[in-house]
Amino acid sequence: MKQLRYGIIGIGNMGSGHANILTSGAIKGAVLTAVCDGFESKRDWAREKFGDKIAVFENAESMIDSGLIDAVVVATPHYDHPTEAIEAFAKGMHVLIEKPAGVYAKQVREMNEAAAASGKTFGIVYNQRMNPLYQKLREMIQSGEIGEVRRINWIITNWYRTQAYYDSGTWRATWGGEGGGVLINQCPHNLDLWQWTTGMMPIRMRAFCQFGKNRNIEVENDVTAYAEYENGATAVFITSTSDAPGTNRLEVSGSRGKIVIENDKMTFWRLREEEAAFNARNTEPFASPECWKIDIPSSGPSPEHAGILQNFTDAVLLGTPLVAPGEEGIKGLTLSNAMHLSTWLDGWVDLPLDEALHEAELNKRIASSTYQKPSTAAAETKPADLTGTF
Amino acid sequence: MKQLRYGIIGIGNMGSGHANILTSGAIKGAVLTAVCDGFESKRDWAREKFGDKIAVFENAESMIDSGLIDAVVVATPHYDHPTEAIEAFAKGMHVLIEKPAGVYAKQVREMNEAAAASGKTFGIVYNQRMNPLYQKLREMIQSGEIGEVRRINWIITNWYRTQAYYDSGTWRATWGGEGGGVLINQCPHNLDLWQWTTGMMPIRMRAFCQFGKNRNIEVENDVTAYAEYENGATAVFITSTSDAPGTNRLEVSGSRGKIVIENDKMTFWRLREEEAAFNARNTEPFASPECWKIDIPSSGPSPEHAGILQNFTDAVLLGTPLVAPGEEGIKGLTLSNAMHLSTWLDGWVDLPLDEALHEAELNKRIASSTYQKPSTAAAETKPADLTGTF
Repeated sequence: MKQLRYGIIGIGNMGSGHANILTSGAIKGAVLTAVCDGFESKRDWAREKFGDKIAVFENAESMIDSGLIDAVVVATPHYDHPTEAIEAFAKGMHVLIEKPAGVYAKQVREMNEAAAASGKTFGIVYNQRMNPLYQKLREMIQSGEIGEVRRINWIITNWYRTQAYYDSGTWRATWGGEGGGVLINQCPHNLDLWQWTTGMMPIRMRAFCQFGKNRNIEVENDVTAYAEYENGATAVFITSTSDAPGTNRLEVSGSRGKIVIENDKMTFWRLREEEAAFNARNTEPFASPECWKIDIPSSGPSPEHAGILQNFTDAVLLGTPLVAPGEEGIKGLTLSNAMHLSTWLDGWVDLPLDEALHEAELNKRIASSTYQKPSTAAAETKPADLTGTF
Repeated sequence: MKQLRYGIIGIGNMGSGHANILTSGAIKGAVLTAVCDGFESKRDWAREKFGDKIAVFENAESMIDSGLIDAVVVATPHYDHPTEAIEAFAKGMHVLIEKPAGVYAKQVREMNEAAAASGKTFGIVYNQRMNPLYQKLREMIQSGEIGEVRRINWIITNWYRTQAYYDSGTWRATWGGEGGGVLINQCPHNLDLWQWTTGMMPIRMRAFCQFGKNRNIEVENDVTAYAEYENGATAVFITSTSDAPGTNRLEVSGSRGKIVIENDKMTFWRLREEEAAFNARNTEPFASPECWKIDIPSSGPSPEHAGILQNFTDAVLLGTPLVAPGEEGIKGLTLSNAMHLSTWLDGWVDLPLDEALHEAELNKRIASSTYQKPSTAAAETKPADLTGTF
């Protein structure tokens, strides 16, 4: 195979973005040959935009059966990601799914099993893994620069969303339509980076979700979560869609120092001696270990979605390792599911997650939902301006 | 009365500091006429240091009965603050107590009642209330600059303390000796400023204390606490004595903007329009309110302990309002007690606090303590170098 022929399932906001990148010629070895969407208005948009160069289908099955494609990008609503992926794997496709991997861990686990059985390449659009800043953080943690991780604080409250945003689609911010709010829609990248950069998953979590905070929606849009790890480390994750202006400040503290990422800049406070070793030999009550404040140089801009598409293409064509294997989508989703479940049960949630319990509790919210969208809300029929989203 | 004659109860670390300030001539209208301490070595230190100018007593009762003093500074171990204060009020003294007000809210409430009945001036050494930075924060919040408070995040993990510190006194970091760890010894100022600057006490709290984290002690030295307020606001308070280097970053977010205090500097992000008003009129899904980043000018250094002593002196002599009325010591202590109790009960703690329940649970820890100090530990017999403490 010299070229990987892509088909996009769903050409709404994210799908149209992928289409634009794939048709721009920026991705070496990749060609967009088909798209599909259930909405006629979106198919019209695609025909108008791409003309005859790209085949347009009403559904994924006919697109895959056409023989025009080798790989699919799944960019449908969240709930459908696993279903679409499983069907594509069954037909021998390579699959790149949009985030989140799904809405509840149980369905994502089934998708991962289908991927493994297929032997095909499976990726997820965790484009922030392409950001050199987070790659650097991961590399520094994995290489031991800050020693053993002791504390992670992420204040990521800059996901400002207006009521107009929530009112712009019937499915938005509903249990039935999205299966959650800020955790499912805005935070998947953060929840992925939290565990990917540190290489650690908590052993238990206690979270406090607030639903419809300063907004007329039924799902959570304000969350404070606390996590504990096997090694005694703790973490706090705080997010919101109504803080203005919000904050994006990630602090990781370890036995050899501390890293803070804020304003797209990394600062490293490096201990010259491990804290435990200093503490063991020190005899002065008010002493503290020598510490150097270091500005870590910027590693340049992130290739974002184009980076993910290139990496996925290279993985299929050249065997390049995936930066964001699809199977890893379950990790961030598990953190999100655990936060919901802890709030619903008003107690601790142990990890590994009781996925069946989470699904049952989610289904209760869907079944008992009485939330009515304003009459002005409509299913989106054209790509919105997503400047400022990811 | 032209001069307020002070007597200091307990001339250990903090008491000797007050003695040095009072004898320096820096406090207008104040004179140190007596001190008392149960330790002979400390009395010897005082005689050597001050000669015949200052009377030295073995206990507070004889010092007060001498007729040499009008006011006492209570600088004994934490548990004794309320007892000493109540005795002093009974004998007509004005009383300035060191922080914390006490160890458990119930005993502090009794002290407050004694103070009210006496009609005497009652202050607490919350010297960080004299810091222009926190005074500015309070003034900005109270005057409505950030609108309604929605979120408070304080990462105050720079209370680094070594094992050598903990081993330096038999009473340190024990349930029986101090009644707590970082919350009782290091954080009282932060717990006071948290509620004083915002003017808000939570309605319920959930806290996660870790005991003897990276240190051989029995009390908490690593805490993450979550709080909820009547108006829907939330807060997170994180502290530690083994993070190196720690962080001191206070963020208060409101409906009209956000203030961050870090590195002794205040930054204000000011919305030109209240968030709720913007959200109500806005029709663009991805819009956000206009925001100005403003560097708030520094207001100069803090007079710290000298400021508190001057203010207390002025309150007695001139009727100047107290910056830190003693009655308010119960507020920060309640936050601390609630964090302990939430951890012990592994659940929510509602405020106002069930003070009797907290006292009972604390007494359980004292009764069941099996912690043994290293044989090198001793009761401190001379003032330690407290550079870096407050």
